[in-house]
Amino acid sequence: MTFLKGIAASNGIAIAKAYRLVEPDLSFEKKTIGDSAAEVERFNKAMEKSKSELEAIRDKAKVDLGADKAAIFEAHLLVLSDPELNAPIVDKIQSEKENAESALKETADMFIMMFEQMDNEYMKERAADIRDVTKRVLAHLLGVQLPNPSMIAEEVIIVAEDLTPSDTAQLNRNFVKGFTTNIGGRTSHSAIMARSMEIPAVVGTKTATEEITNGDLVIVDGLKGEVHINPTPELVAEYRKVHEDYEVQKAEWAKLVNEPTMTNDGHHVELAANIGTPNDLKGVIENGGEGVGLYRTEFLYMGRDQLPTEDEQFESYKSVLEGMAGKPVVVRTLDIGGDKELPYLDLPKEMNPFLGFRAIRLCLEEQGIFRTQLRALLRASSYGNLKIMFPMIATLDEFRAAKAILEEEKQKLVSEGQTVADKIELGIMVEIPSTAVLADQFAKEVDFFSIGTNDLIQYTMAADRMNQRVAYLYQPYSPSILRLVKMVIDAAHAEGKWAGMCGEMAGDETAIPVLLGLGLDEFSMSATSILKARSQIKNLTTSEMEKLAQEVLNMQTTSQVIEAVHSATTKN
Amino acid sequence: MTFLKGIAASNGIAIAKAYRLVEPDLSFEKKTIGDSAAEVERFNKAMEKSKSELEAIRDKAKVDLGADKAAIFEAHLLVLSDPELNAPIVDKIQSEKENAESALKETADMFIMMFEQMDNEYMKERAADIRDVTKRVLAHLLGVQLPNPSMIAEEVIIVAEDLTPSDTAQLNRNFVKGFTTNIGGRTSHSAIMARSMEIPAVVGTKTATEEITNGDLVIVDGLKGEVHINPTPELVAEYRKVHEDYEVQKAEWAKLVNEPTMTNDGHHVELAANIGTPNDLKGVIENGGEGVGLYRTEFLYMGRDQLPTEDEQFESYKSVLEGMAGKPVVVRTLDIGGDKELPYLDLPKEMNPFLGFRAIRLCLEEQGIFRTQLRALLRASSYGNLKIMFPMIATLDEFRAAKAILEEEKQKLVSEGQTVADKIELGIMVEIPSTAVLADQFAKEVDFFSIGTNDLIQYTMAADRMNQRVAYLYQPYSPSILRLVKMVIDAAHAEGKWAGMCGEMAGDETAIPVLLGLGLDEFSMSATSILKARSQIKNLTTSEMEKLAQEVLNMQTTSQVIEAVHSATTKN
Repeated sequence: MTFLKGIAASNGIAIAKAYRLVEPDLSFEKKTIGDSAAEVERFNKAMEKSKSELEAIRDKAKVDLGADKAAIFEAHLLVLSDPELNAPIVDKIQSEKENAESALKETADMFIMMFEQMDNEYMKERAADIRDVTKRVLAHLLGVQLPNPSMIAEEVIIVAEDLTPSDTAQLNRNFVKGFTTNIGGRTSHSAIMARSMEIPAVVGTKTATEEITNGDLVIVDGLKGEVHINPTPELVAEYRKVHEDYEVQKAEWAKLVNEPTMTNDGHHVELAANIGTPNDLKGVIENGGEGVGLYRTEFLYMGRDQLPTEDEQFESYKSVLEGMAGKPVVVRTLDIGGDKELPYLDLPKEMNPFLGFRAIRLCLEEQGIFRTQLRALLRASSYGNLKIMFPMIATLDEFRAAKAILEEEKQKLVSEGQTVADKIELGIMVEIPSTAVLADQFAKEVDFFSIGTNDLIQYTMAADRMNQRVAYLYQPYSPSILRLVKMVIDAAHAEGKWAGMCGEMAGDETAIPVLLGLGLDEFSMSATSILKARSQIKNLTTSEMEKLAQEVLNMQTTSQVIEAVHSATTKN
Repeated sequence: MTFLKGIAASNGIAIAKAYRLVEPDLSFEKKTIGDSAAEVERFNKAMEKSKSELEAIRDKAKVDLGADKAAIFEAHLLVLSDPELNAPIVDKIQSEKENAESALKETADMFIMMFEQMDNEYMKERAADIRDVTKRVLAHLLGVQLPNPSMIAEEVIIVAEDLTPSDTAQLNRNFVKGFTTNIGGRTSHSAIMARSMEIPAVVGTKTATEEITNGDLVIVDGLKGEVHINPTPELVAEYRKVHEDYEVQKAEWAKLVNEPTMTNDGHHVELAANIGTPNDLKGVIENGGEGVGLYRTEFLYMGRDQLPTEDEQFESYKSVLEGMAGKPVVVRTLDIGGDKELPYLDLPKEMNPFLGFRAIRLCLEEQGIFRTQLRALLRASSYGNLKIMFPMIATLDEFRAAKAILEEEKQKLVSEGQTVADKIELGIMVEIPSTAVLADQFAKEVDFFSIGTNDLIQYTMAADRMNQRVAYLYQPYSPSILRLVKMVIDAAHAEGKWAGMCGEMAGDETAIPVLLGLGLDEFSMSATSILKARSQIKNLTTSEMEKLAQEVLNMQTTSQVIEAVHSATTKN
């Protein structure tokens, strides 16, 4: 029985067999072989096995995930049957007496290099297909097994170094009960994904893939951030109890689904949800979200080979606005660039992408992209309660420039006879320290603020939130962060505007009492955190939280703040 | 006649012939040759030419730059005469009928790869030597000329994409009259180097290397940030006049060298200098520096293959303290990591080095390095007026941890019977927004603050100061930056401490009036900026600058601030 400590990334308890989403060792030695006919035979066998494996995967993917997700395997099958790839490999084995592994790899690498050098998106994708297929054939030659996540047909816990969007796209959600990964934090992709799938996850365990073998029984404790490998039956029983208790608690929370969010002295705040696609709306409604506080529109632009059209975007925005039936929907304009790449945009590599050319910086320069999105939003505005916000605003000049472009597109649409809502609130993300410090000036011109704590914290502490070595500086409860939050809220209220928060911090149990005390109007979080937060807020008293907030603002360190919140909230 | 606009990086006017420090095109095609004996002969000729060229460079470097700088060329000569490298090349030409360029490149690449894969610093340097020598021989084979900066023997203006520390180490300062580069900003290495060499420079021209040919007459206008290529005789005459006027103005400033820095209403501030090595002291004294406000100790650790010993460091610190003869010397402890690499430390690559594991973050973990430096500093403390400051402090916990280590080393030294100064002021760089926002809490525990604006601005605006695409966000005069500066100064004064500034902004003509109005006590800048700043401050009135500062703090944009400073200071 082994125990790993990690970061609790998504609540709940999962108990199931491990499924390693880890690439096996595919290294081999280049050799001269004696019997080249036998070697060709060995190569052909590996090709046939790969073919029938891929056909099975494709068929299953079609059923489970739909035809568009299965298309990738169709492309792989085409590569497998391409004589232009196969003939030179067989030839290399026969004439140069190379072993099949080496003949395959060298030939494939040549094609990959050739295709990648063509400056053409389609050919680059073909290069990626060849790379994937080569791995599969190589695995068969070496007698090792590649993970095939789309073939999972029993309840499992996924064990991986990290999970990328394309990994998760292939997972059958009915069978995946939990995640554990070596790297990542609460704001990494795998963590956000786990919360949106409502499955427990522990990330940043450092060694999960080393410690866990396929088929090990694993407990993922997403409440405490612990992973138990091959636990004793006693521990399993104990955890089944924790799981049941948690389910009971969730059932209690579920009763709050249609209630407004009220403190015990009758102060109302809005609990909204962060979403990535229209599909996430179901979770928002089931969890009693009072609005969408952050619609991340990046997903519309990702996993495709060209920009989404105005009409495609319009349909997405319209369906979210209609789905929320008049409740507020805050849409963030495109936040791409830096670490979030779009292959078809061909942005230059940057030394510090988090401090680079991204979000509004990119949109103000690549105005075609920006204007298309704004037109789609404006056209959708009459289908619900739309609010638009711009990301990564650092100066008032940037906000004014973005607003001017929006106004231009609005005028154009109106003169084209399109219907546009009369009043669309226009706000900004506050995620750059400069903007928090100057919030009083911004408040004169924006309709609202939404504090993006994930970035605000990393810039304020000058610490990359993805970098393990400086992870200790990601301190949401630092008095300096709380002071910036206060500046933003006070600035909004002084001008009669509202202030929300859409970073991780808004759904955090320790942060909520202080944010309430600071006067935050809207808390936007993972849909699955809403009911728990509502339950917590019901038991808090505004005046006491105001006193607490006042105290922590004058503290020196994060640990003092945590202690103060703990002692103020447990005495209730 | 062509004109380029860039960034004025170092004051003054230079007029001279262009010297391109640009690598020529060394590409070639692999060919099969007929007469391999002739090809071997061609190869041997290129080797001989390279050898005599390298000998000349070595001899000249010995005289001009000293034996240690010449050692690199000695190493290159050794590579040239190594039969283990030559024999396989000749063999390849003879047996495989490859052209000399290809035989040379393929053989060298094999050795380079082999040496680089050995995890050994010595072998990695040999790989670098082979790479340099290969370039030189290849240039002779292709009939193109490599730049040989150490051979410059007439007045020139250096034209380059960018200048690295190793480029500048090879320049004979007597002949280099100015720089112009394609990339970089006021805080890039080439800009800082130009100011320390007291030669005019214009950086960030984007196209200097495209527009300028070797031998073109070039005017570098480091006052306005302009470069003129092959100017008319009239323009040259005009610029000679500007140059003379500037020299006259400098002579005026020079009269202030022994005067204290006083406003016209008798308020004294300290003008100190930023230095990198004890060699920079001469410039500090010649320019009337009232102290050293920032001694960057990184240079002690760079350009070598192991850490400097305690004794080596002690000698450097002692010589600076003695050289300043009792005037204050603020030493910043090691700020390495991130973009400033030390090859012998083998730090992991980071996705966002500016937000990474560097400076105090690294020192608190790699305590051996930190303790050695602190011991050297403590031992040197009795030779002058030493103040120690820690870089990249983000939390009070970090400051306390660093201070505790310093105290431990002090106790150890005292118990070993070493002399340590009784009182050493202990401060921090304020270069992370978090620390500025919480300055009132820090002020209770530190003896002083020194605001590092280069980093503070890039973190506050979330914009990499080396990234051209977001350069527009590097805004020292932004009201948000000025507010943070005010927080720091006010916090220091409330606790009876002093606040200085050691970023570029401290020597900036537009910033100085506002900083004076905000109450900054110490301004630390390039030594060459001190006299000009002293002259400017003599003409300013404290009470008026306080009023100006109050006004600009409530402005909305950078351009408003610039306008306000301009109108307030030109009416004087």
